[in-house]
Amino acid sequence: MTQPAHRRRPAQSNPRVQRTRNHVLATARELLLQVGPAGLTYALLAERADVTRQTLYRHWPTRAALLFDLVLEGPDLGTYPEPGSDVRDVATAWLKSLRAGVGVPAVRAAALAVTAQADHDPDSARALVRIGEDRHAGFNKLLEPAGIQISEDEFTLLYGPVLARLFLDRGQVTDAFIDTVVAQWLTTLQRADAPQDSRE
Amino acid sequence: MTQPAHRRRPAQSNPRVQRTRNHVLATARELLLQVGPAGLTYALLAERADVTRQTLYRHWPTRAALLFDLVLEGPDLGTYPEPGSDVRDVATAWLKSLRAGVGVPAVRAAALAVTAQADHDPDSARALVRIGEDRHAGFNKLLEPAGIQISEDEFTLLYGPVLARLFLDRGQVTDAFIDTVVAQWLTTLQRADAPQDSRE
Repeated sequence: MTQPAHRRRPAQSNPRVQRTRNHVLATARELLLQVGPAGLTYALLAERADVTRQTLYRHWPTRAALLFDLVLEGPDLGTYPEPGSDVRDVATAWLKSLRAGVGVPAVRAAALAVTAQADHDPDSARALVRIGEDRHAGFNKLLEPAGIQISEDEFTLLYGPVLARLFLDRGQVTDAFIDTVVAQWLTTLQRADAPQDSRE
Repeated sequence: MTQPAHRRRPAQSNPRVQRTRNHVLATARELLLQVGPAGLTYALLAERADVTRQTLYRHWPTRAALLFDLVLEGPDLGTYPEPGSDVRDVATAWLKSLRAGVGVPAVRAAALAVTAQADHDPDSARALVRIGEDRHAGFNKLLEPAGIQISEDEFTLLYGPVLARLFLDRGQVTDAFIDTVVAQWLTTLQRADAPQDSRE
């Protein structure tokens, strides 16, 4: 029942708890830019957000869970795609949603900081792996009506070029680029299907 | 006449100049991990490497040029691919060379640091764009015997999944994964060729 997402909506709970949570996440995003993921300790965050460390641990039992939310829990951009039976449509909508998600400066900064620190900060590494697993599972959920599920390799082949264009080329992901990525990606699925069976 | 590379061999010049250069780069890589790309000023680097700032500017007229070399000038791993007429072979060898290059911890750390800082540090952003252009040109040089040249989009489609696997999934790039990436990528080249002409 987790919300598969580039953005996850917070659980619908007590509004006051929700406000605290949002306030802490906003504070943590600011701090992240100043001190990096490895420097973002619970002691520092509790002090700056003016909450107790107990409150932090209640929301995020591990620091990896906190980093995970800093990357995945952006503002609601209203573009999270619907499940569908057309693989091309689902993949295209999903990449556009990914583009929108990492276009949010705070989310983008958090993702880059966690990625850069992952070699040295085990919590960042764990958060990254969990983010990938979560997105992969979320994408497969969207594909259920299409009757296929995507392997980890196939997932990386889909999202890799889009994030490379944004973060490494530092260029724009146009709709045309997304179309090219999806068209190329579909050929791999067809190849993977070929030896198995002839579905109807 | 630049050496297209994940690793570039320093120009064959005066050995003493070369030693200085290597010493500065080694010092800069250590500093980069401590202070990040934005903190890596020429004043700090000159002090730690025990050279004058004039020496630094002679080797690297801009800080972007220095960051560029920190990422691209790794140890010589002896695997830089040869040009060839078979596109599949060239692309496969090139991705294996990329994998080896970013497998070097100092290169990997420099690449991640520059990427993470590029939103806030214009020199890092410029270095990243130049790195991409340099690699793209280098790859096209290898493809000259094959009689084709690759667009920027096609280049990103090739390398994106490999770096995503390494840096975001934090997984291994196996030979099988490279084969899958290249096989998928070749379908895009074929599509791009199709509407143009029927070459002989």
